[in-house]
Amino acid sequence: MQDRLARVRTEVQAELDRAITALPPGDLRDAMAYAVNGGKRLRAFLVMESARLHGVSDDAALPVAAAVEALHAYSLVHDDLPAMDDDDLRRGQPTVHVKWTDATAILAGDALQTLAFQLLTDPRIGAPEAQVRLVSALAQASGAAGMVWGQALDIAAETAGTPLDLDAITELQGGKTGALIRFAATAGPLIAGDDPAALDRYAMALGLAFQIADDILDVTGDEAVTGKRVGKDAGAGKATFVSLLGLDGAQAEARRRVAMGTDALSHYGDAAGNLHDLARFVIERDT
Amino acid sequence: MQDRLARVRTEVQAELDRAITALPPGDLRDAMAYAVNGGKRLRAFLVMESARLHGVSDDAALPVAAAVEALHAYSLVHDDLPAMDDDDLRRGQPTVHVKWTDATAILAGDALQTLAFQLLTDPRIGAPEAQVRLVSALAQASGAAGMVWGQALDIAAETAGTPLDLDAITELQGGKTGALIRFAATAGPLIAGDDPAALDRYAMALGLAFQIADDILDVTGDEAVTGKRVGKDAGAGKATFVSLLGLDGAQAEARRRVAMGTDALSHYGDAAGNLHDLARFVIERDT
Repeated sequence: MQDRLARVRTEVQAELDRAITALPPGDLRDAMAYAVNGGKRLRAFLVMESARLHGVSDDAALPVAAAVEALHAYSLVHDDLPAMDDDDLRRGQPTVHVKWTDATAILAGDALQTLAFQLLTDPRIGAPEAQVRLVSALAQASGAAGMVWGQALDIAAETAGTPLDLDAITELQGGKTGALIRFAATAGPLIAGDDPAALDRYAMALGLAFQIADDILDVTGDEAVTGKRVGKDAGAGKATFVSLLGLDGAQAEARRRVAMGTDALSHYGDAAGNLHDLARFVIERDT
Repeated sequence: MQDRLARVRTEVQAELDRAITALPPGDLRDAMAYAVNGGKRLRAFLVMESARLHGVSDDAALPVAAAVEALHAYSLVHDDLPAMDDDDLRRGQPTVHVKWTDATAILAGDALQTLAFQLLTDPRIGAPEAQVRLVSALAQASGAAGMVWGQALDIAAETAGTPLDLDAITELQGGKTGALIRFAATAGPLIAGDDPAALDRYAMALGLAFQIADDILDVTGDEAVTGKRVGKDAGAGKATFVSLLGLDGAQAEARRRVAMGTDALSHYGDAAGNLHDLARFVIERDT
């Protein structure tokens, strides 16, 4: 899996760089390039693997992988803004609004969202029907009924000062981080016109495991390794899977979700080896 | 034209309300509904008229008209933010960040952009090829080589404190307001698969006339009528068509652009009567 992940990283970075280099020069373009640089690329990897499992070529899947990473990068740039989560560090570097200005961060995030949809119209993806399915699914996953909805709930909970319970956090994270992960993991069947149900079940479990692991890293992680501030959620008195379940309980819940996720892959047999590995990696990572 | 414009306003508002009512309830949805309420709907009108000229039904064009208004509304919500133009009044009402918070305004703008792309996948539009052309063209018009690029230039010019010259302002406005107007006016041929060149020439001229009229209204307009602050650009020492050409010069230039725009419509004959009327309306309006 690590070889494939490394190759996906290189190819997706090149794809994003190509798209951004074609834009007019200036702070806006520089900030966009900065924002899409680096990261684990787990979402891109999910796109490429789900494509492979459904007979879609790497060449056809690559613009979709780049789109999901551009969308993800936009969400991080906006979430980091002072008016939102107010983070100054991301991937070990100053966040976009710290390095430039709030205005440039707002505009760079806006334009990265636009770029994501533009990438989904790349003719390499294949049939227009597939492109339309992707645009519709990405909009559904990332908009006011998906990712942005989850982020709005998160901010509302912080403002209200009432910590959420386990059901509410699970639902919130299903939007905030889960919806885009589900889009990524079902991109292959969406392109091919196949049934995405099994990969959707996998992704739903993976997304929660991923978020639980994030909450664990916020407590146990090393800032020098994670590249972002740790202890932030706990310090803010924010309800997390760790605050609600305890560290051991959260670790057990993450393992349970990984098992649910890998169960959903049985249909694919050995071909889904990389997705099995990814599910384990998601809870064993230190970054 | 005014009858058709009134009908378009009603239908586009209903279309946007339908899409937004389907979202999960909360501040985010309320802020989105608030942001898309009202406005002149000139962009929606351009979509509907360009569709009619190319044999595209109102039913097929309506989601596209709603998409362009959602996209426009997102740009206004973000442009009004304190980190950007810092406007507290829009369409005679408090701006979104004043009525809610900066965070809600950022998220509502984000989700309105997403909604715009989602609306372009509405099956009523017709062939998937048409939908893909629309998504690609809207992304091109509104992203880091179009509208957002123009907004970034505008903010850079304000920060630098060096007023722009006429060529620079014309280029900037071609991105900031012109690109979306050109998308709207060419939506009909884009859906039908026809040549958009004539409508694009019309829209380029119309967009500049519209912006010059805006600059004139910033000087001569009545806040109670325009529903936004006037004298703001002049007060900020910002270069505008009026500061560069004088009031009479700007009015002459707006008339010249309108004449260029209507010349471009000759190909359509009498069928383009509404677009002729719109071009005159754009420079004669008081709001």
